[in-house]
Amino acid sequence: MKVEKSPFVCIFPSPVVLVTCSSLDGRSNIITLAWAANICTKPPTVALGIRPERYSYKLIEETKEFVVNIPSKKLLRQVDFCGMASGKDVDKFKLTKLTPEPSTKVKPPLIKECPVNAECILKQKIVVGVHDLFLGEIVVVHVDQEVLNEKGRIEYAKVMPIAYNLGEYWSLSERIGSHGFTEGKI
Amino acid sequence: MKVEKSPFVCIFPSPVVLVTCSSLDGRSNIITLAWAANICTKPPTVALGIRPERYSYKLIEETKEFVVNIPSKKLLRQVDFCGMASGKDVDKFKLTKLTPEPSTKVKPPLIKECPVNAECILKQKIVVGVHDLFLGEIVVVHVDQEVLNEKGRIEYAKVMPIAYNLGEYWSLSERIGSHGFTEGKI
Repeated sequence: MKVEKSPFVCIFPSPVVLVTCSSLDGRSNIITLAWAANICTKPPTVALGIRPERYSYKLIEETKEFVVNIPSKKLLRQVDFCGMASGKDVDKFKLTKLTPEPSTKVKPPLIKECPVNAECILKQKIVVGVHDLFLGEIVVVHVDQEVLNEKGRIEYAKVMPIAYNLGEYWSLSERIGSHGFTEGKI
Repeated sequence: MKVEKSPFVCIFPSPVVLVTCSSLDGRSNIITLAWAANICTKPPTVALGIRPERYSYKLIEETKEFVVNIPSKKLLRQVDFCGMASGKDVDKFKLTKLTPEPSTKVKPPLIKECPVNAECILKQKIVVGVHDLFLGEIVVVHVDQEVLNEKGRIEYAKVMPIAYNLGEYWSLSERIGSHGFTEGKI
């Protein structure tokens, strides 16, 4: 039996990512986002939902560059903190002791402790509501060798990414199938 | 040590959802998507990335309505099938034995077996690349009473949603924290 609820965003699980960005004068910041997604495979494009009052919103708008860093669950405390504190008030790299590393193609740094980092160029900003939508094209990806298997593919069990279920952080359990395993037959 | 990779979409985990849509003459279809996200909390807005050659692309474009259904991992075979087969060729409701139920505000049906269903109105379509972006506003949500706790909140352990790690379906393990648990302190 279903019950009807007033509308709320209810897609889950969401990914939890740390997005790095920089001010025009080169100060770097980290924002935690769960309103984030792959949206197009080619050109590889990501969508981020960010509130206009967030410090990172202005930085990304001004510099048109950001990096999406995939944290491991070992970083959960830093992840939550970077979603709560504001870069207007504090230096999140300093307080979290996360390590900025130079990017290849954009100014915002990678986070060393995150096993996967995607450098992005802002392509479009779309006004939506309390969050606006940023579309970024991924221009280069960095992956920690320790999470790659012998075929050069990411071993997700080694990354231990964090999923977000509307207010709750969750860990992943195990692979239950591969895309296409039914071969289009039921 | 990090290795540099040519750009590819690398946000994970992604949600796995079953999107229902209908043709102008009332035929319903199901498409499986992992390029999907909450993007704005108010108005509650979701983003979907869909390839223009998919049958559902045209249906959503024409009718400007769709439903996002959250499947449980028990439905994995149906989920994979609905991502592989095309509604141009087959009736996916019939073949999967998933049950269409009437929606309240839109024409495409809910999937009864999915514990959470969000009825959506298309607000914008944005041309991106091999996938285009559909932005939909959620107008009503349906939740199976069996997955609600005594406070009326969703118990994710009961839903058993599916996460997608770039080619692999994964199950979730356990809650490892709640949003805001650090209270902005590190």
